[in-house]
Amino acid sequence: MKDLKNSVGIVETKYFDITEKIHLESGVEFGPIRVAYETYGKLNDKKDNAILLLHALTGDAHAAGYNTPEDKKPGWWDDMVGPNKAFDTNKYFVISSNMLGGCSGTTGPCSINPETGKPYGLSFPVITIEDAVKVQKKLVDFLGVKKLIVAGGSMGGMQALEWAIAHPDIVVGTIIIASTSRLTAQGIAFNAVGRNAILSDPDFNNGDYYDKEKQPERGLAIARMVGHITYLCEESMHNKFGRRFQDKDSPNFDFNIDFQVESYLEHQGQVFVDRFDANSYLYITKAVDYFDLAKKHGSLKNAFEKTNSRFLVMSFTSDWLFPTFQSKEIVQALIKAGRDVSFCEIESPCGHDAFLLEFETQTEIVKSFLSKTNGGSDD
Amino acid sequence: MKDLKNSVGIVETKYFDITEKIHLESGVEFGPIRVAYETYGKLNDKKDNAILLLHALTGDAHAAGYNTPEDKKPGWWDDMVGPNKAFDTNKYFVISSNMLGGCSGTTGPCSINPETGKPYGLSFPVITIEDAVKVQKKLVDFLGVKKLIVAGGSMGGMQALEWAIAHPDIVVGTIIIASTSRLTAQGIAFNAVGRNAILSDPDFNNGDYYDKEKQPERGLAIARMVGHITYLCEESMHNKFGRRFQDKDSPNFDFNIDFQVESYLEHQGQVFVDRFDANSYLYITKAVDYFDLAKKHGSLKNAFEKTNSRFLVMSFTSDWLFPTFQSKEIVQALIKAGRDVSFCEIESPCGHDAFLLEFETQTEIVKSFLSKTNGGSDD
Repeated sequence: MKDLKNSVGIVETKYFDITEKIHLESGVEFGPIRVAYETYGKLNDKKDNAILLLHALTGDAHAAGYNTPEDKKPGWWDDMVGPNKAFDTNKYFVISSNMLGGCSGTTGPCSINPETGKPYGLSFPVITIEDAVKVQKKLVDFLGVKKLIVAGGSMGGMQALEWAIAHPDIVVGTIIIASTSRLTAQGIAFNAVGRNAILSDPDFNNGDYYDKEKQPERGLAIARMVGHITYLCEESMHNKFGRRFQDKDSPNFDFNIDFQVESYLEHQGQVFVDRFDANSYLYITKAVDYFDLAKKHGSLKNAFEKTNSRFLVMSFTSDWLFPTFQSKEIVQALIKAGRDVSFCEIESPCGHDAFLLEFETQTEIVKSFLSKTNGGSDD
Repeated sequence: MKDLKNSVGIVETKYFDITEKIHLESGVEFGPIRVAYETYGKLNDKKDNAILLLHALTGDAHAAGYNTPEDKKPGWWDDMVGPNKAFDTNKYFVISSNMLGGCSGTTGPCSINPETGKPYGLSFPVITIEDAVKVQKKLVDFLGVKKLIVAGGSMGGMQALEWAIAHPDIVVGTIIIASTSRLTAQGIAFNAVGRNAILSDPDFNNGDYYDKEKQPERGLAIARMVGHITYLCEESMHNKFGRRFQDKDSPNFDFNIDFQVESYLEHQGQVFVDRFDANSYLYITKAVDYFDLAKKHGSLKNAFEKTNSRFLVMSFTSDWLFPTFQSKEIVQALIKAGRDVSFCEIESPCGHDAFLLEFETQTEIVKSFLSKTNGGSDD
């Protein structure tokens, strides 16, 4: 029997339907949209104890607990969400939804276009972080939330920033972890390679592969392998794999897997194609590439002057994909904009993935921040 | 008319044939082998003024000058090789050869196997840095060289290290630039992704594609794109491209090229497939992955105790593929082994590519090293 006492327990993924069309940043009017979401804890009477979690590139609505008693793995941030955890479900009403364009229940390129009866594929509109937040706002309104804390790592942090700027009337606290206000040129380059691998896979078939035997698995696996290198760092790879051979002590002298690190990447690629849609990978990486608050608002300071939130910004020493200097840019602009901001660079050898792993330090810092943030008032 | 006064001028690529089989590190006996090479300057009477240049991953024998008066681009290290340059052809006899397994004149997987009359493809034996040096040694002996200085950047530095250890009787000077005694786990990971892209391209056809319309171009281009990200660094990408869009100021909202950095990578991938063979890419990256002097000799100190050379080691501040700490490992082991070593970390924003770009600083340091190294004696 699974021990659920430190868990939110068995949770059901729910669905919320937006029937009207929404105006996307590209100018396209798009809808209807179904949103997959989960909630943990209870909304209080004042409806001011809500926390919205925003997932990273390949995340989903299932942030905590188990969907069935048979599940082997809990949600992606289970270490952070539950009774007495960082996002304490005894106190807060925690919401998590799958992003627009995703492939885990929310409308995305693999969804059926009601006008054609077929999956959208590349006829799905290119979406942005702003669009994703627009959809989330509909969900939050539907749930009756009056005050909101937003929190996310990596791309989730981008969405949290967008939330604070777009909805200062309800966002009172913003937690940005291992994130940035805009990707580096190098970050765009890695995403471009991943997209290129998918687009040039013959099984891609211009995005129209849903009735085929398989999706562009080779391209998607390569995209994931490249991604995984950037989520780790040289130190974590050295500690995990070093130059050790896989199940032997000498080279194969062929092109099969020689080193443990090769085996790891191969495995990551393989399991990823079973759970993620190649088209979604294209759309979501594009949304990440486009995100640029300074460009959109004239400057980062301008952007943050629109907010009405307290901020917590965290980065990790070994994260080279969303490096600390980018978090510091956010912090400096927030200070210039006169906002209340706490910043912490956490010492970690785990690279960018640290936001999913270093939960003890994060818990302490998040709890401290939440205790000082309006929301979840008992009075 | 091309101005050739600071150049070695028009040079011819020559060929040297090794008719007997050589014993490869894998245990395979392999031959015959043709070696493409070029020489610049003249071997002196004492035959002790030779410098062997060792190329990096995708280099060739054509290190300096022009092969024809119509050539638009000189050899890959032309800034460093010529009259009064770092490798001064007025004083030194400079040799450069294409590596075993390459695709620019030296026997490699695209060469015709005389036993079958067809290209080797994957029947070509897996080779190592040791094997490449074995072949180079035959060439150097054929040229009548008695004392030798070896120099190379990146994979060329690995070969130079191997030379110093394997042939202490003739190597009197060793110049190691932006290199390492063993690749990091991260470095292996990037190579593995590149190989994976080639191996999973349907045009790869198990390496047997030479009579087909094209080689596995998509996979090879993706391998090159990944490689290029690692040859630059975030700073150089930021300076070169930033987040600028290509020929416009706003997003496409489609999956065509948006950013300059995407266009650059795409271009690098495309031009690469016209000049390089996918099978060679597999073989040479494998040789790089396998290279590990400490594993082979028990320790780096043990390895270097076999040498009889002076050493110059250079690294670049922004090189994250062959980072400075790896050069320092070499230097520390050389000191422990009681060898004469000079070390310089050069401040550069050019990433790993700096060894091909920062020629002014390198020239000064190399000239100073050469002036103190036995070889090229006039007495």
